Parts: sequence; C-alpha cells; structure tokens
Amino acid sequence: MKAVILAAGLSKRMGEPETPKGLIKIAGREILYRNMKILESLGVEEFIIITNEKYKDKYEGFIKKYNFNAKIVINKHPERENGYSLYLAKDYVNNKFILLMSDHIYGEDFLKEAVKGYGLIADRNPKFVDIEESTKVKVREGKVEDIGKHLKEFDAIDTGFFILNIDIFDIIEKIDKDVITLSEVIKAYKPKVYFVDGKFWTDVDTPEDIKKAKKLLIKNAVKGTGDGFISRHINRKISTFISYFLVDYLTPNQITIISFLLGVFSALLCFVNIPLAGVMYQISSIVDGVDGEIARASLKTSKLGGYIDSILDRYVDFLFLLCLGYVTIKSIFMWVILAIAIFGSVMVSYSTERYKAAFNRDIYKDIPEMRYLIGKRDERIFITMIFCLLQMVDILFIILAIITNIRVIITLYLVWKKVKE
Amino acid sequence: MKAVILAAGLSKRMGEPETPKGLIKIAGREILYRNMKILESLGVEEFIIITNEKYKDKYEGFIKKYNFNAKIVINKHPERENGYSLYLAKDYVNNKFILLMSDHIYGEDFLKEAVKGYGLIADRNPKFVDIEESTKVKVREGKVEDIGKHLKEFDAIDTGFFILNIDIFDIIEKIDKDVITLSEVIKAYKPKVYFVDGKFWTDVDTPEDIKKAKKLLIKNAVKGTGDGFISRHINRKISTFISYFLVDYLTPNQITIISFLLGVFSALLCFVNIPLAGVMYQISSIVDGVDGEIARASLKTSKLGGYIDSILDRYVDFLFLLCLGYVTIKSIFMWVILAIAIFGSVMVSYSTERYKAAFNRDIYKDIPEMRYLIGKRDERIFITMIFCLLQMVDILFIILAIITNIRVIITLYLVWKKVKE
Repeated sequence: MKAVILAAGLSKRMGEPETPKGLIKIAGREILYRNMKILESLGVEEFIIITNEKYKDKYEGFIKKYNFNAKIVINKHPERENGYSLYLAKDYVNNKFILLMSDHIYGEDFLKEAVKGYGLIADRNPKFVDIEESTKVKVREGKVEDIGKHLKEFDAIDTGFFILNIDIFDIIEKIDKDVITLSEVIKAYKPKVYFVDGKFWTDVDTPEDIKKAKKLLIKNAVKGTGDGFISRHINRKISTFISYFLVDYLTPNQITIISFLLGVFSALLCFVNIPLAGVMYQISSIVDGVDGEIARASLKTSKLGGYIDSILDRYVDFLFLLCLGYVTIKSIFMWVILAIAIFGSVMVSYSTERYKAAFNRDIYKDIPEMRYLIGKRDERIFITMIFCLLQMVDILFIILAIITNIRVIITLYLVWKKVKE
Repeated sequence: MKAVILAAGLSKRMGEPETPKGLIKIAGREILYRNMKILESLGVEEFIIITNEKYKDKYEGFIKKYNFNAKIVINKHPERENGYSLYLAKDYVNNKFILLMSDHIYGEDFLKEAVKGYGLIADRNPKFVDIEESTKVKVREGKVEDIGKHLKEFDAIDTGFFILNIDIFDIIEKIDKDVITLSEVIKAYKPKVYFVDGKFWTDVDTPEDIKKAKKLLIKNAVKGTGDGFISRHINRKISTFISYFLVDYLTPNQITIISFLLGVFSALLCFVNIPLAGVMYQISSIVDGVDGEIARASLKTSKLGGYIDSILDRYVDFLFLLCLGYVTIKSIFMWVILAIAIFGSVMVSYSTERYKAAFNRDIYKDIPEMRYLIGKRDERIFITMIFCLLQMVDILFIILAIITNIRVIITLYLVWKKVKE
C-alpha cells in the first residue's frame, strides 16, 4: 500500500514559517517522521509527499536523512488548496491508497486500527482536539452526508486520515474550479465512514497546539506495566514534567547516565547526611523514569538502553543500601538483615525478568495481581527515603528484608498457579 | 502428512516379551512416544500403527493415554514379515507418507532433516549403531541398488525411516510370496536415497541396546550453553551418571526439590564443619544438573520447572554465603566484601537472564565469548568448595566479590559491543 501525504500548505496561521508543519519537531521528532515510521512498520511501502516549491528542498533533505522510500510531487499552485494537491497524486498511486495530512500526529494505536478501515476515518469520541476548530462529519447510511467546520449537527470528527480508491480522481476532475478544498472533494465523493474512536491523534495549527501535542506525547509515553503505587501517584507526575523540558535537548542514554550518577551520589551522601541522602535517592528514582519516557515519546526506544538501565538500577540500589548500612550498622545481626534486604531487592527484579526470559511475556500482563504486590523499586526507594528522614535505618532494613523476599515467594506462587491453570 | 509405523514384529530376539518394543520405556518414555511427539511437532497429522493381535490392546491403551491421533491396523499374520505389514497400510494413506520402524529411536535433529527428504533416508556416518548388525544400502545414481545386512560393498546405513509414495503398494502386490521382508520390497522398488548423516538415531534389538540407548539419550540431554568449565569437565560426567539411574524413578521437579534441600543442608553445615559444607555444596551443584538432564531426556521439560529451579538456585547460593559469612566473619570490612560477593553472584544470573528478557535470545549463542568468562554458578561453587577445604574463607569472599562483578561489567561491555555491531 502507498500513502499520500498532503504537505503543500503554506502554514499561513503560523505566519508562513521557514520550517513546514510536517517537519516541525515535537518531542524530539518531526511530525512526519512519527507517522511515516509507524506506517512503515504497518506495511506501507511507499510515500508520496505533495508539497510546494518553497518547502521542496526541506522535504527532500528529510527523506534522504531518514532513508524513507518516498517521492516528492510539487504543487506549483498551493493557493489552489489541498483538493488540488490530492489530484496531483493521480499518476503515482493505483487502486487503494492511504491519504493523510502532514500536520496531524497519530498514535500507534490509532494507526493500527485506521489502516484496517476504509473511506474517511472518523472519531466519535475525539479526546485530544479542539472540536470547535475541527472538521465535522455528518454520516448517513455509513457514508459521508456532509462535511465542514461549521456543521451544526454532526456524528463524528474527521481525523484527516483516509483510505481511498483512485476513482476519487474522476470526482476531482468533474469539479471544474481553480480552488478545490479537500472537504469539497469528500462532499462530492461521499466515501464510506470507518470509526476509530477515542485513540490518540491531534492536529497542529498553532504554536499552542505544538505545546499541547508535546505534552500529550510525553504523557502517552508513560509505560503502564511495572509501575508501583509511588510511581503512578508521585514519580510519573514529576518525571513527565521533567521529560517535557528535556526531550528536545537530551537523549535517553544521557538521562540514564545522569540518573545513575544521581543514584551513586545519593549513596555517597549517606556518609554526610542520611535524610538528605534519602531525598536525593528518591530524586534519582524520579529521574530514572525520564529516560524511558523520552525514549518512547521520541521513538528512540532501544533494547540495549533498557538493558543497561536495568543493570545500573540494580547497582544503585545495592550501593545505597551498602553505604547506608556501613554508616549505621552496629551489630552482626543487622549485617545479616542488610544482606537479606540487598539480596531480596535484586530478587524482586530477577523473578520478574526471569519470567520474561522463560515465557517471553510481561509478568504484569499475564498476572495482573502482581501490580498490587508491594516491593517494586519505586516503592522501596520511597520507603527508604521516609525511614532515612525518620533516621530509623534498622527498621528500614528489616522492612526491606521482609517485603522483598515475601514478594519473591508470592511471585513464585502466582507464577506456579498461573501456569497450572 | 501421515506416518506409518511398523510394529507387528513379535520381538523374538527379546524372547517375545509382554511389552512390544515400541512401548519399551527408555529414559522415562516409550520409544514410540518420543518419535510420535517429535513428528507431531514437525507437522505429522495422523499415525497408522501396524501391529499384531497380541499387542493390539497395549497399543490402543498407549494412543488413548497420550491422546495421539492414530489408527491401529492389525496384521493377523506377523510371520509374513514387515513388507506384508507395510502393505496393510494401503487403504489408510494417500500420496506421500512417512514410514518408520517402531524399534528405532530418532533424535529431534535427525527427524527435522529426515522429514524434508524423500525415499530411503540413509546415514553415511552412523555414530550410534552396530554396523555389523545394520541393514546396508548400496546406492547408484541416487537410487537404491542393493540393500541387506550382508552386503560387502555399501555406501550408507538404512535408518529405518522412509518417505514413500503409494505406488510402492503396486510393487508389493507384484511380489507374489507369503513372506515378504521390507528389504525385498525396497530392493524391487528402488527408491531414491536421501542422506542424513551423523545425527542421533539408533535401533533397539537387545536388552543391551536399551541400556545403550538410555545412555545416549541422557548424554544428548546435556544442555550445552551456559555450562562453565567445571560443569563441562566434572559435574556433567557425574550428573549424567546419576541421571541414568534416576530417570526411571524420579520426575525433574522432584530432583529440583532434592537439589534445593541439599543446598540448604550444605549451608546449614557451615555451622558444623566448613570443609564438609563446601563438599556438600559442590554435591548439590552436581545434582542441580540432574533435573534438566532428566527433563530433556524424558521430554518432560517445562518453562515453569526452569523458572522455579533458577529462583531456588539463587536462594541456595545466598544462604550458603550468608551462613558461611555469619560463622567466619570478624570485621565490618569483611561484611562489606560479603555483601558485594552476594550481590555480584545474583547479578551474574540477572545480567544473563535480563538479556534473554530484552532480546528474546540466549546470550551464550549471541555472544560466544561469554562461554569462556569465569564466574558461572558451577565455577563459583567449585571455587567455594576449594577455599572451604583450605579454610580460607576471607580470600574466597574477596575472590567472589571481584570475579562476579567484573563478569557483570564485561557482560555489559560485550552486549553493548554486540548490539552496536
């Protein structure tokens, strides 16, 4: 399947900027990069980008840089509007093709469903767009009856994503006008309507839209599974805020290193001031969420990055407990307890990852009860901070030794139960 | 594809026993169970078992017990030999079908290649059969020229596995005799010859053959990857010996529990006698190999079994070091070293399993250098035994703390290098 991207508009509402809308970087990636990368992974083989003479070089540089299989088609009269731009794709597609707008951002969930559809893809429950400003669609017997920004009665919002057939070009030929909008074409063509409701997609018309889209991308980049109570209710609220500001400046791997160094620093702080060390440890835990958020928001996730991050996390946790123990422990009994707490802390991760290694599935997806089991890293670190602030380190070690090892035993039991089912 | 199994012989050389050869359990599983399970996984949909009236009930019980999709066909005149037995399959197969003997054991590697072949599957490099006693094949222009036990000149050994076409039944009809051997049929049919050389397969004619086959199955059940130097050169030699005797009596899970209890026992022995504890720890390490060997040899491997085994191993290692430390350590410095050694020991496993979780591949297959990196469990336990015998526990802890953590750092580097390639 081929995809036609309409990118010939001069972005007048943005003040005709040097960078076309499709190439604006939001959360570290160009709008088009996101859509094209995801569509590629869903089987789209070639892209036809319709642009104007002003933006030609920019788009050519873009497709060369990322090695996309794309053709550039020039609309010499962008003032003739996007219906005319679509017509210029006529000689480059055959049968069914995808049509999308260069200023719309679509999430992977949305695109996965949309490519299975046909006609105009509409959303009856649009969560991320300003309905006032959107193109509305009135549906009758499964087909478009009316379309436009100012419809009083409507059934859904036009997502700017279509699966069309080449017979649409005959319709455009019949509209014998200089200026042809896409809405006009659709109104005449009356395609079927396919609903993809409530999934992430939005359009970018103003500088405010860019900020909003960036926030949404970061928010959507929070990985659900494996987050403990503290992560969900405290850490993620702060880390997404940090990610929002850092996503354009730092790579995920750089954040991994910063978070690791903060963790080592917090461990060393135990020798200076234990409450302060606890607070710094909790800060490093918050920053530890940023690398993953930035990686997912900017489509820069890597298995290697995740691997290194998780090994470094284990070393930070070990180092913090060891330094804290070294400074505070006065009895052999407490050394034994500390050893059990250190071992249990690694085993929480080991029992989770070993499950993935054996069954090639996420333990939190297979066994949902696991999500409510206390002892995850974010929870352990938060408890550690609290007891550091209270200067009750012995009790902390006893609590950690108990909850981590009980968690591992319960994990074993739940895995056994799940497999036996 | 269907598979015809010739099982009508009365096993005269075994003294016409109550149990037919195909249902003899070798290393915990019937010969037929092995071949049929593997063939099922390779796409064989139905089995036709040709047997005699004496063994009919036994084979019926067998296919019912394991729920195989198999038909039983009775040869009322087993004395008319296996060529006649094959003829009885005529109404149950169409086009191409597999033919195999009920008294041959085939390894998975052999069957994977053999099912891709055609005609008579022959072995030019048979490693596990007595050539004197085997059926030899003389090949000419890719086809069988002569076949028999007493050929003086031959090119390969008949593996008892064939991929035939129904036109072979016409050939049998033309041989107008009462007693028809399969060799006679093959000699007349002159099928093509397909070579599968040097893979595991053997036939079972005598009680000695059963013992030999059992030994071979246990030996082939040794998992190559992840075994350290000590495992390869010491532990596996002893554990396969133990497996040989236990495979018919204990399940893999029972061995896992015994090995775990031996490990816990060895840890507690630290309070009584440290050299003895070290030796017992090494014994538990040897027994730890038995569950996997028995599981693979008897086709009883389970992901759950592997998961539980690996978590219990971590607890045994932790408990041994903790008990040993509790009994011997006199200084805070050594408690710190012990904590590093305990942490490093788990991290060796964590860094290996986390790789599998991330990349869904075996780290030892992806990065062969990892095999020669010291610090695997078998090596750590052997070193521990040595230093327990020498009563030099402090040095042991220092060595373990260093080699385990250096191993993790080198693992990180090798994974990084591999992915960057």
